[in-house]
Amino acid sequence: MSVVLVINAGSSSVKWKLIEGSSGEEIRGGAVERLGTAGSGHAEAVGSILATLEHENISIIGHRVVHGGTRFTEATLVTDDVEKQIDELSALAPLHNPVNLAGIHATRVAFPGTPAVAVFDTAFHQTLPPASSGYALPSKVIERHGIRRYGFHGISYQYVSARAAELLGRPLSELRLILFHLGNGASACAMSAGRSVETSMGMTPLEGLVMGNRAGDLDPGVILRLGQGGAGWDELETMLTRESGLQGLTGSGDMREIQSAAVTGDDRAAAALEIYHHRVRHYLGAYLAQLGGADAVVFTAGVGENSAATRAATLAGLEDLGIQIDPGLNQAPGTEPRVISAGSSRVAVLVVPTNEEREIARQSIAVVNR
Amino acid sequence: MSVVLVINAGSSSVKWKLIEGSSGEEIRGGAVERLGTAGSGHAEAVGSILATLEHENISIIGHRVVHGGTRFTEATLVTDDVEKQIDELSALAPLHNPVNLAGIHATRVAFPGTPAVAVFDTAFHQTLPPASSGYALPSKVIERHGIRRYGFHGISYQYVSARAAELLGRPLSELRLILFHLGNGASACAMSAGRSVETSMGMTPLEGLVMGNRAGDLDPGVILRLGQGGAGWDELETMLTRESGLQGLTGSGDMREIQSAAVTGDDRAAAALEIYHHRVRHYLGAYLAQLGGADAVVFTAGVGENSAATRAATLAGLEDLGIQIDPGLNQAPGTEPRVISAGSSRVAVLVVPTNEEREIARQSIAVVNR
Ligand SMILES: Nc1ncnc2c1ncn2[C@@H]1O[C@H](COP(=O)(O)OP(=O)(O)O)[C@@H](O)[C@H]1O
Ligand SMILES: Nc1ncnc2c1ncn2[C@@H]1O[C@H](COP(=O)(O)OP(=O)(O)O)[C@@H](O)[C@H]1O
Repeated sequence: MSVVLVINAGSSSVKWKLIEGSSGEEIRGGAVERLGTAGSGHAEAVGSILATLEHENISIIGHRVVHGGTRFTEATLVTDDVEKQIDELSALAPLHNPVNLAGIHATRVAFPGTPAVAVFDTAFHQTLPPASSGYALPSKVIERHGIRRYGFHGISYQYVSARAAELLGRPLSELRLILFHLGNGASACAMSAGRSVETSMGMTPLEGLVMGNRAGDLDPGVILRLGQGGAGWDELETMLTRESGLQGLTGSGDMREIQSAAVTGDDRAAAALEIYHHRVRHYLGAYLAQLGGADAVVFTAGVGENSAATRAATLAGLEDLGIQIDPGLNQAPGTEPRVISAGSSRVAVLVVPTNEEREIARQSIAVVNR
Repeated sequence: MSVVLVINAGSSSVKWKLIEGSSGEEIRGGAVERLGTAGSGHAEAVGSILATLEHENISIIGHRVVHGGTRFTEATLVTDDVEKQIDELSALAPLHNPVNLAGIHATRVAFPGTPAVAVFDTAFHQTLPPASSGYALPSKVIERHGIRRYGFHGISYQYVSARAAELLGRPLSELRLILFHLGNGASACAMSAGRSVETSMGMTPLEGLVMGNRAGDLDPGVILRLGQGGAGWDELETMLTRESGLQGLTGSGDMREIQSAAVTGDDRAAAALEIYHHRVRHYLGAYLAQLGGADAVVFTAGVGENSAATRAATLAGLEDLGIQIDPGLNQAPGTEPRVISAGSSRVAVLVVPTNEEREIARQSIAVVNR
């Protein structure tokens, strides 16, 4: 029996799970939370996790890594050289790659004989067509800095799309899907025939939907104006990566808190929710047009799985586009993949809980067995 | 008979027209072109135009002004104070407001007794709902810098939407329209009941569609990366306002040149067109979702009016969303407002030549007669 330890070192937490390889079932797991975002506590956190797992028979360690650039187009066995390359890609994801690397390094030191596999959030989106991955900047600047849309949350989209196809009883190769991963970070993805053809995060995880702490889409002219008004680059980076999004608008980046505040009459919270919903709708429509129509819209991650209010608000008034949820199904609690669209809806609407750890385990085993 | 002189001082040209007030017909007009973008030649250009019009019986002078901020929500009679405020708004549109102001000032000196009216490109979009005008930045930053989506090309949208309603034989108050102004600058607008509810340009004219010289939508993280890599603010401003868009990707900002190059096998030109079409489609779908469906899609300005290829490429494959053009109607040349959709298309597709000067004349007369 192969057991995979999956390490998901996020910006402020390290989550881990032991996964039974053949079934994909979770044996046990845990998390160390509220770490500083400087990455200092992450190696120690991983160390403390490993100490509790000394007597487990771990055969593979799979790590979530946010940014693989164009270098990593699939899950990859970690070597010293791979660690170095993940480090070099930190400029593209300064909040994530350094903490991912701290986790990888700690496990390779503690379990030197156990293969470590890096599973990248960006790899899945390497299939984006050039029309979708390209930015309209000077070609020299693009080449010099490797500027393109990479996209993120790819591990989640791979897992969720496979479950969605099972639920619909149709092969992924025949489906046009629009997926929304709405967590603290949030993005959208359009898939055709099992491949990512559109996604809302860009070269970095700053673009697209409104997130817990990130603005998402922003007029480039706003940044010019702030900079010419005297803001420094570090100040702008802090603002754009940590102090914007729902946090910037309301003082909280937590959707549950904001929804509660809005219900009790907090106007700023209500206004922030409007912007959040509006942006989800924007991408829903945009991807409908790019796909020429869709078979299903799929919600996942903390907000997507749990907030019936968010799903209802973002899909309201889309009957003419063939999208209609069933209020009862939408409200019904559940932890399994489920359909929430009305029988008359031409486009199915699904809620599919994501499980990035399970997907990481699956891909890690495939890399080691290759 | 009232005669209106309309001055449209663009970034590199000054166009003028004499318009007969009651009919809106053009008496004559002209342009001084290829001016430097520093604004130095604009006052002289206006002076030379005025010299040829000394003996005309001009009763009103109407000026196109790009940025009116939140201060100007409609066309306004120019006073010294209004000039000062337009100047103060230059930070929001550095390529445009200074040259607009040079034109205004020159006419007020030459024709001190003739009322001058400023007609703003932004005023029409002051009806945007907060969900559409808001960016998800820290609320203090938003308040300090007046950050919001203003939108541009409003004069064009007002004119074109009125003509579209005439062509459809239905009151504007009943219509949901998606309009594309595709010129050197390019934007999209969604209108419901005669009001702008969505538009793609933002706080500045840099956001949204791919343009002749501007990138449009761009991951904020890309700008952070360029800045942290050593680019200065002036360099970034030049890059983003003048060296990006089609120009940046292909070396030419002129759609005709790029289409010709693509036809003769230039891969870079073909790739740039793909990005351009893709972005138009993105906004088409997004606005369909925001409006919950549309009665018509309307193309205007240099590319939108003249390029059947652009219209065909952006609307291909949207039959399932109820949008289908008639290839023959699309190809047929014309200078009048016309329908180009197939009979079976649920959404009408129109080509409506814009006439910003006529709209400026109409609004200028309304201000003076108020
Ligand atoms: N029942 C709920 N209703 C609304 N939002 C919820 C609910 N449960 C969790 N969330 C929100 O989900 C977000 C966290 O999502 P999650 O996917 O766990 O984030 P991460 O991106 O860190 O993995 C938080 O904003 C939280 O408030
Ligand atoms: N027949 C045509 N086919 C394709 N593009 C055209 C055609 N005629 C004009 N254009 C394009 O229209 C653009 C200029 O649009 P215009 O509305 O005149 O610009 P501005 O924003 O300066 O007013 C240029 O890119 C030009 O190449």
